[in-house]
Amino acid sequence: MQFSSDNWAGAHPRIAEALTRHADGFAQAYGLSEQDRKVEQRFGELFERDVAVFFVGTGTAANSISMAAANRPGGVAFAHREAHLIEDEGGAPQMLTPGARIEPVDGDHGRLDPEELDAAIRRFPAQFIHAGQPMAVSISQSTEIGTVYEAAQVDEISEICRLHGLPLHMDGARFANAMAALGQSPAEMTWKRGVDILSFGGTKNGCWCAEAIVVFNPDLARDLPFLRKRSAHIFSKSRFMAAQFEAYFEDDLWVTLASHANTMAKELQTAIAESQHARLAWESPANEVFAIMDRSTFDRLQAAGAGFYEWKTPHFAKQLIGENELITRLVTGFATTRDHVREFAALLDQDSPANL
Amino acid sequence: MQFSSDNWAGAHPRIAEALTRHADGFAQAYGLSEQDRKVEQRFGELFERDVAVFFVGTGTAANSISMAAANRPGGVAFAHREAHLIEDEGGAPQMLTPGARIEPVDGDHGRLDPEELDAAIRRFPAQFIHAGQPMAVSISQSTEIGTVYEAAQVDEISEICRLHGLPLHMDGARFANAMAALGQSPAEMTWKRGVDILSFGGTKNGCWCAEAIVVFNPDLARDLPFLRKRSAHIFSKSRFMAAQFEAYFEDDLWVTLASHANTMAKELQTAIAESQHARLAWESPANEVFAIMDRSTFDRLQAAGAGFYEWKTPHFAKQLIGENELITRLVTGFATTRDHVREFAALLDQDSPANL
Amino acid sequence: MQFSSDNWAGAHPRIAEALTRHADGFAQAYGLSEQDRKVEQRFGELFERDVAVFFVGTGTAANSISMAAANRPGGVAFAHREAHLIEDEGGAPQMLTPGARIEPVDGDHGRLDPEELDAAIRRFPAQFIHAGQPMAVSISQSTEIGTVYEAAQVDEISEICRLHGLPLHMDGARFANAMAALGQSPAEMTWKRGVDILSFGGTKNGCWCAEAIVVFNPDLARDLPFLRKRSAHIFSKSRFMAAQFEAYFEDDLWVTLASHANTMAKELQTAIAESQHARLAWESPANEVFAIMDRSTFDRLQAAGAGFYEWKTPHFAKQLIGENELITRLVTGFATTRDHVREFAALLDQDSPANL
Amino acid sequence: MQFSSDNWAGAHPRIAEALTRHADGFAQAYGLSEQDRKVEQRFGELFERDVAVFFVGTGTAANSISMAAANRPGGVAFAHREAHLIEDEGGAPQMLTPGARIEPVDGDHGRLDPEELDAAIRRFPAQFIHAGQPMAVSISQSTEIGTVYEAAQVDEISEICRLHGLPLHMDGARFANAMAALGQSPAEMTWKRGVDILSFGGTKNGCWCAEAIVVFNPDLARDLPFLRKRSAHIFSKSRFMAAQFEAYFEDDLWVTLASHANTMAKELQTAIAESQHARLAWESPANEVFAIMDRSTFDRLQAAGAGFYEWKTPHFAKQLIGENELITRLVTGFATTRDHVREFAALLDQDSPANL
Repeated sequence: MQFSSDNWAGAHPRIAEALTRHADGFAQAYGLSEQDRKVEQRFGELFERDVAVFFVGTGTAANSISMAAANRPGGVAFAHREAHLIEDEGGAPQMLTPGARIEPVDGDHGRLDPEELDAAIRRFPAQFIHAGQPMAVSISQSTEIGTVYEAAQVDEISEICRLHGLPLHMDGARFANAMAALGQSPAEMTWKRGVDILSFGGTKNGCWCAEAIVVFNPDLARDLPFLRKRSAHIFSKSRFMAAQFEAYFEDDLWVTLASHANTMAKELQTAIAESQHARLAWESPANEVFAIMDRSTFDRLQAAGAGFYEWKTPHFAKQLIGENELITRLVTGFATTRDHVREFAALLDQDSPANL
Repeated sequence: MQFSSDNWAGAHPRIAEALTRHADGFAQAYGLSEQDRKVEQRFGELFERDVAVFFVGTGTAANSISMAAANRPGGVAFAHREAHLIEDEGGAPQMLTPGARIEPVDGDHGRLDPEELDAAIRRFPAQFIHAGQPMAVSISQSTEIGTVYEAAQVDEISEICRLHGLPLHMDGARFANAMAALGQSPAEMTWKRGVDILSFGGTKNGCWCAEAIVVFNPDLARDLPFLRKRSAHIFSKSRFMAAQFEAYFEDDLWVTLASHANTMAKELQTAIAESQHARLAWESPANEVFAIMDRSTFDRLQAAGAGFYEWKTPHFAKQLIGENELITRLVTGFATTRDHVREFAALLDQDSPANL
Repeated sequence: MQFSSDNWAGAHPRIAEALTRHADGFAQAYGLSEQDRKVEQRFGELFERDVAVFFVGTGTAANSISMAAANRPGGVAFAHREAHLIEDEGGAPQMLTPGARIEPVDGDHGRLDPEELDAAIRRFPAQFIHAGQPMAVSISQSTEIGTVYEAAQVDEISEICRLHGLPLHMDGARFANAMAALGQSPAEMTWKRGVDILSFGGTKNGCWCAEAIVVFNPDLARDLPFLRKRSAHIFSKSRFMAAQFEAYFEDDLWVTLASHANTMAKELQTAIAESQHARLAWESPANEVFAIMDRSTFDRLQAAGAGFYEWKTPHFAKQLIGENELITRLVTGFATTRDHVREFAALLDQDSPANL
Repeated sequence: MQFSSDNWAGAHPRIAEALTRHADGFAQAYGLSEQDRKVEQRFGELFERDVAVFFVGTGTAANSISMAAANRPGGVAFAHREAHLIEDEGGAPQMLTPGARIEPVDGDHGRLDPEELDAAIRRFPAQFIHAGQPMAVSISQSTEIGTVYEAAQVDEISEICRLHGLPLHMDGARFANAMAALGQSPAEMTWKRGVDILSFGGTKNGCWCAEAIVVFNPDLARDLPFLRKRSAHIFSKSRFMAAQFEAYFEDDLWVTLASHANTMAKELQTAIAESQHARLAWESPANEVFAIMDRSTFDRLQAAGAGFYEWKTPHFAKQLIGENELITRLVTGFATTRDHVREFAALLDQDSPANL
């Protein structure tokens, strides 16, 4: 019953197998091997266009270095108030840009509100040195709270970016889960909707360590080799990054794994919705489930070995949570099984001794 | 005949096997799993004392974050003029400290000259704000050019550090090779000689990606979790770092691999010393061999498929190199075989068509 | 009719005279002269305790270097959403800390809402590396919109700081205006209420360039000489900074000037309140007046030579402003005369040709 | 007998008078006033071409922000080993670029050696990410040790810059002294020799606080308004900067003052050369004099009230200094009088009691 995070899982057997398969022999270091090149081309096929691909070690690095690629002196990016960029990266975007600000923008259900976004950008007029220079907008797909942007919603955001001349970054730490939920192609998810640069995550969906910055706008790729190096994120044995992605894409493994995780999340949501002891905070089409319960239930579940976290209440959701209640997050992943879900459901509905 | 770098090799089978072995199941993310803890303890046993251990993804990260741990406002570290910190890390130490200077200090054979070091530090008197504050000394063991510091030489450096109140950092990207060459224990290599913080490299010696910052001085460890996070170098599935180190240390695999690489380097040096077409630039007890040859020989070898690089001439070595000559670096590793060496030796001594 | 900003004025005659008086002779550079020392002591007398004083060239420097003094790795400060630190310093706090985040906190009338502040801090739990470390709270006195914190309001904020172990910074770019409005002593305004470090502004109130960081908590002063130097803000001929402050404090010139500016603001507010063509957005006891008017009035006034700016609508004030209306800022200063105010009042009430 | 530094003097009466003259009235803040514009045009006339001018508060800011204007990701600038940029700016260039490295290059008499410069740049090959990117060369005119670059010497340096595609920065903290010594025009000193960006100092030569970044290459000016703002170096009452420069240029005051300082230095050098108790370290055509003496003489002079400093021995000069000897720096300025020089000469030649 381990729902703490999708990064508590290990690596999918086919990823592990790929690592072993590429352990032999010599290959050029620092991303210049044939294996690297081959996988970069594979990215191009998946996205149906030329892309520049840069492997990095962590999602935080992918996001922070993407911000660095877009940054300008006095630069300000705009992201959702509860975005990973703002609340969970320990200042790395500020350090690796360096010095950029990430301006928080409100919006319910984890999505940037277009009007709020436009208003926020307007508070930083271009060429007004005291404010600084807007330099990027970042959205997360799926969002921090398991929701997704529909195509039209991304279009709306990217139209605002276009109006203000700003590149659009997508934090795709859970890109595969969003894609599986939306049923769109990688291209439809990104550059066809105006996304300029993407943090493409593999780690949470079955790799052990495979993240890539995928750049659609060549201007943003120009300095990236140096931006990555000065962030200490160019790996000598980059072939092992490439190897993971090779296996990840083969036979659509990534889609299979993400779809599985989403299905598990759906079943978990059904169980919660039917329970007397918790309720869904909101629907999630991806692999993060948010449930509201009272603290005694939470404590009972934890004591019984269920792994999941209390979560910071999103600003828009304050009204949803009653007194003595708290909001919790449960994450499914490639390694989540139907048994985990059933076991949790059974535990949830089992009356605690205190309630008898 | 691949001597380009020790990071052109892949992963040792026992490392690959460990990655597969730990691919199953759930474990706490971000360095908090039992597996992480177990390996941290293993480091303590190896170093015969309490240590704080922080895994990071690259040697550049290990060095840069170590500098960050020692940094003070206006901080200045002192390193060899041709140290990796200065010439090969693309500004990462400056970015991740951030803002520190690394002052180059001369010394022959890749080692800091103690007198030069002392004189360099004295140019930055403590509390003289215009100069800034000395904050650390860094030495590489083995050095960038395959030499090592003898115990007495480290003692001499650390005595200067003590006098000036500066922590001593050791860049141990090739720690195992130095250890095998010197026949000292990890403790004798480091804290028993006054080393406060160590970049401990596993990648070049058979891991795919395993670097650790090992901290002997607890003051330097205090902020390290945050310094690592803001550098985007805390890995979610840290268990795989731990897994590599576990296998690395088991049955002294690391010593075996490093000894092998050093032996190969020794045999390669013998071949070069006996050759008519090249000569050794200097003796190297570790796994990097430096040979002087003329450009036609270099070109002939390259054309025949020998993988090795022309190298920047160290400042102290300008006199060693004649006109039309260049200095080259050949690196051996765990995957280098006697056949590679023999093949290279044969190729080297084979007269080139142009010479017949 | 120049109400654009209090920094459009020049220097008060007594400030100019002090600069001339100290132009002769030799004095130790970089803040070490007797003149510097004497003025530092004068600060101590005014604040009724030992203080450390650091002159810098701009208010942005004072704020940014104060943040640097409080910063910790991954550091997060908390300030009002429309604070100068967030909206008007072009990223300098992020650059000079470097890398800190300034988290925006809501509150009406330009003041931090204590509950919002407490909730915001709680989103960054100490020792949770992914969020980073809270490191300071900053309030502006007077605020960006001409309001002030009453004593009890500062107490409430500083109590929250104490609970979370955070230093409290006060941006006192208009400290004198706030003091004149509140009738408190410098000590009552600051350390007696828990303020640890103060940006003390002289420039807007009659100096040409005189800003000081005043530190009450000695821990925050320790690194400040280096933090200032590395920000390029230690002035060689610091004696001229000291000279300005000497004249500024003599015979309470600063209080006289600030009181005058506040009185002018009061009269301007009366004129606006009585006008048919504009209304006060809110009461301001200090020297910044905010008026709501329609655009035709604004354009008419501008065309007639009145100097004042349209202002970004504060988030709390969106409801106050009707369609076709805008919010404007008018600032008074030591150089504002009653005639300026009367002339503006007359102009305001004069019906525009369009309205006849 | 005050020769400690040219920044121990105050302000020339005509500078002080200009500050008073501009104290009245209102003017647009932040460098946008007519007075600012007028003085910017005056710079253009002096340099015989269009220039972009940015006032900043300190020489350290002028140098650091100039470096920021030239910086690229992983950027490396090249400067003389004992340049102010390297030894006396407390890390500000690293902080405000941010993250750039300043690579030290040798050369005797305070001047970059062209061959050493070329070799140093070649150690950082463009597009080799591990090294980083060369981004600028900086020379000081006059140098840190009172010498100057002759026209042909600047040509040689700028030719190397051109070859490597690097902009050339000139640290002109003592530009006027160099110009007076060389008898060249401002244009001949700079852009006609390939200088792209200049730190133009007024403070050491009679202003109280007036430094300017003068940009000849428009590409380097583009981001400068933001680079200055984020460094907290845009002054609200910028008109007072402009006022100082206006007086500084009027009737060639700056040339008169610098020539006077140089003449005083010449006379001081004559006195030292003729003395039994000290000797010149080298000839200085500008306003800094370096004398070698034994410590007892140094102590005697200090005890008698002569103000001057022991100086760090330049690397090239180690051989010049005997045992028990030290090198000292004496600086003349606009406020140095012939009496100061005579008094020092008399004191120097007066046998100390200990020697009788």
